[in-house]
Amino acid sequence: MECQNYNITRGVERENLNLNPLQRGGILPREAREALYEFGDGYSVCDYCAGRLDEIAKPSINSFLDDLATFLHVDHVRTVHGAREGKFAVMYAMCEPGDPIVIDGNAHYTTHLAAERAGLEIIEVPNSGEKEFKIDLNKYQETLELAIDKYGEIKLALLTHVDGNYGNLSNAKEFGEICSDLNVPSILNCAYSMGRLPIDGNDWNIDFVVGSGHKSMAASGPIGVLGMKDEWAETVLKRSPRHVKKEVEMLGCTSRGAPIATLMASLPHVIERVNNWENEVELTQEFVSKLEKIDGIEQLGTKPSEHDLVRFDTPILHEISKNHPRKGFFFYEDLKKRKIVGIKRGQTEWFKCSTYGMSKEQRDYVANSILEIVEKFAN
Amino acid sequence: MECQNYNITRGVERENLNLNPLQRGGILPREAREALYEFGDGYSVCDYCAGRLDEIAKPSINSFLDDLATFLHVDHVRTVHGAREGKFAVMYAMCEPGDPIVIDGNAHYTTHLAAERAGLEIIEVPNSGEKEFKIDLNKYQETLELAIDKYGEIKLALLTHVDGNYGNLSNAKEFGEICSDLNVPSILNCAYSMGRLPIDGNDWNIDFVVGSGHKSMAASGPIGVLGMKDEWAETVLKRSPRHVKKEVEMLGCTSRGAPIATLMASLPHVIERVNNWENEVELTQEFVSKLEKIDGIEQLGTKPSEHDLVRFDTPILHEISKNHPRKGFFFYEDLKKRKIVGIKRGQTEWFKCSTYGMSKEQRDYVANSILEIVEKFAN
Repeated sequence: MECQNYNITRGVERENLNLNPLQRGGILPREAREALYEFGDGYSVCDYCAGRLDEIAKPSINSFLDDLATFLHVDHVRTVHGAREGKFAVMYAMCEPGDPIVIDGNAHYTTHLAAERAGLEIIEVPNSGEKEFKIDLNKYQETLELAIDKYGEIKLALLTHVDGNYGNLSNAKEFGEICSDLNVPSILNCAYSMGRLPIDGNDWNIDFVVGSGHKSMAASGPIGVLGMKDEWAETVLKRSPRHVKKEVEMLGCTSRGAPIATLMASLPHVIERVNNWENEVELTQEFVSKLEKIDGIEQLGTKPSEHDLVRFDTPILHEISKNHPRKGFFFYEDLKKRKIVGIKRGQTEWFKCSTYGMSKEQRDYVANSILEIVEKFAN
Repeated sequence: MECQNYNITRGVERENLNLNPLQRGGILPREAREALYEFGDGYSVCDYCAGRLDEIAKPSINSFLDDLATFLHVDHVRTVHGAREGKFAVMYAMCEPGDPIVIDGNAHYTTHLAAERAGLEIIEVPNSGEKEFKIDLNKYQETLELAIDKYGEIKLALLTHVDGNYGNLSNAKEFGEICSDLNVPSILNCAYSMGRLPIDGNDWNIDFVVGSGHKSMAASGPIGVLGMKDEWAETVLKRSPRHVKKEVEMLGCTSRGAPIATLMASLPHVIERVNNWENEVELTQEFVSKLEKIDGIEQLGTKPSEHDLVRFDTPILHEISKNHPRKGFFFYEDLKKRKIVGIKRGQTEWFKCSTYGMSKEQRDYVANSILEIVEKFAN
């Protein structure tokens, strides 16, 4: 049989300034590119496996996981295939079908899917709506208390540390305290935080943290991180009665290939950038200020922004699109001419973007480009 | 914090002749190396996602999956994270906790783990024992019939197409007929066959086939393939009531990164090598004949071998190790001097190996090397 042409190139997205928030935290540093080269073949990390992926010494997955646990301040850590797979593993191991769990109203769709796959009922804490869309932790506590009253026991409460729509940062420590006071195991979805900003599982008193290598840890996807307190290891990392070395919830081994090699190679780089997080936020805030000087562009979510992912309401772009010969495509196309990509094609009422990891000059170039496009076309 | 040195190199295993059966089918061809370069960053295949990984048109994951379904002769196909994740998805979607399923006695440990994770009871069809370790399909049928008599309904029967211990190839078509006659949904674990030899889901009347990209499809791990008949799509690929585009069992999307790009890039190469499978088996049989000329080396499993994975009983190596100054390590070390790796260090009573994809000269070199080592040290 003849194969079709699959177009397996990505020059445009790799070589230009990519504003897609999904892509900014997953760009590989040089060391990870080298690891990708070394471990590109098939089952490459398994040459010296004696039965447990997390115990492999060459490459030193075992030392790496120790370092990762130290970095995240958790007792145990495993790699999984992504944040969603980590959430499912925890929900599936901790709950029974039909159990209710409490989650925040800014949860990623994969949190809903993980709960649906595990057969759980979702009780939601709504966000504050226009224009902050914030999760009020008093409201979270109230919802959790009501749920306990109603059901007797709640086996899991989840908070999205930084959400993917507004980049709102929730207070993990407060959440950890609420849950621990109410004796409810807590899980923090750190897909947009772990690898960008500091995570302290023990200080925050969080039972489970999940992260995403491809989203925020400079790793080649798919890979995620699952950290937990010692008291849950027996439940979530229980061994097979038949294959006593193997962890059932992990199906034996998880990240058996190149992604874990890139995650390992990137750790020093990730530690360094996490130390530099405050500077990153400042640069984002400057970027937001520049765009908000444009009449008809407004940042949504909590202000000032505490994360590089920002969402803008852009009525001015929508206004322009009504009369522009290229309609809604003008913005995407004009940005692309300027080597800026990652904004959804044809969309003008709002956009979300991130300049994470760009130099100050690059961020200024992006802001000025948007300013110029609006000035060029606005009447 | 300071990271330890993780030793993220693999020169020895990449550059030498690697006999590890786990590694032979996952070596990337040039095209896949290029795809790895293009799609190495994070969430790279998701630039143009409109909500469904399997429908992405750039790169053309949609056309690729169509071609893959044609290649495997199945109605629907999805990528998963590996064969084990595919098996779990099917077991979890098709069965209820406590349900019994029937599997063959040569099943991979991940089949057991997937069943344990899904809470299923395993009914095993034993293999024939020394020295063939064969799965007798009459015995399989008998076991399945007894199980149906006892439990009323069996929701799934699994056969390991080619097992990882002896390289025994089972008759998939016969298995498909047995299951369909008894009205039991069938799943074929093709981790060691899909991508090496032809798979024909429809002709064999198999309900589910699972394969492994990193093991046998020249892809960067972790990635697997799950193919199925149309009648099961509603069950295994059911959509989320809340996020109507997303498939629950897949947690929305599975292979969001470089592995799927390499799987796509490798498909033409894989199709070609599958067409060449008979030649591959002949070369393996020649290799086996050469080794069996050595007194004290004997192939186990069905004979002549029908797969590149072969297991040898090697009493002669064990004999040598008793008097050799390097004890059991002599074999590994002497092979390594000759640029041959992938045999377990220190093991002398038996070994399994594969010369899959090597040139005839390379295979002869390996066989002659083993012959020379034995001649050098045997009294």
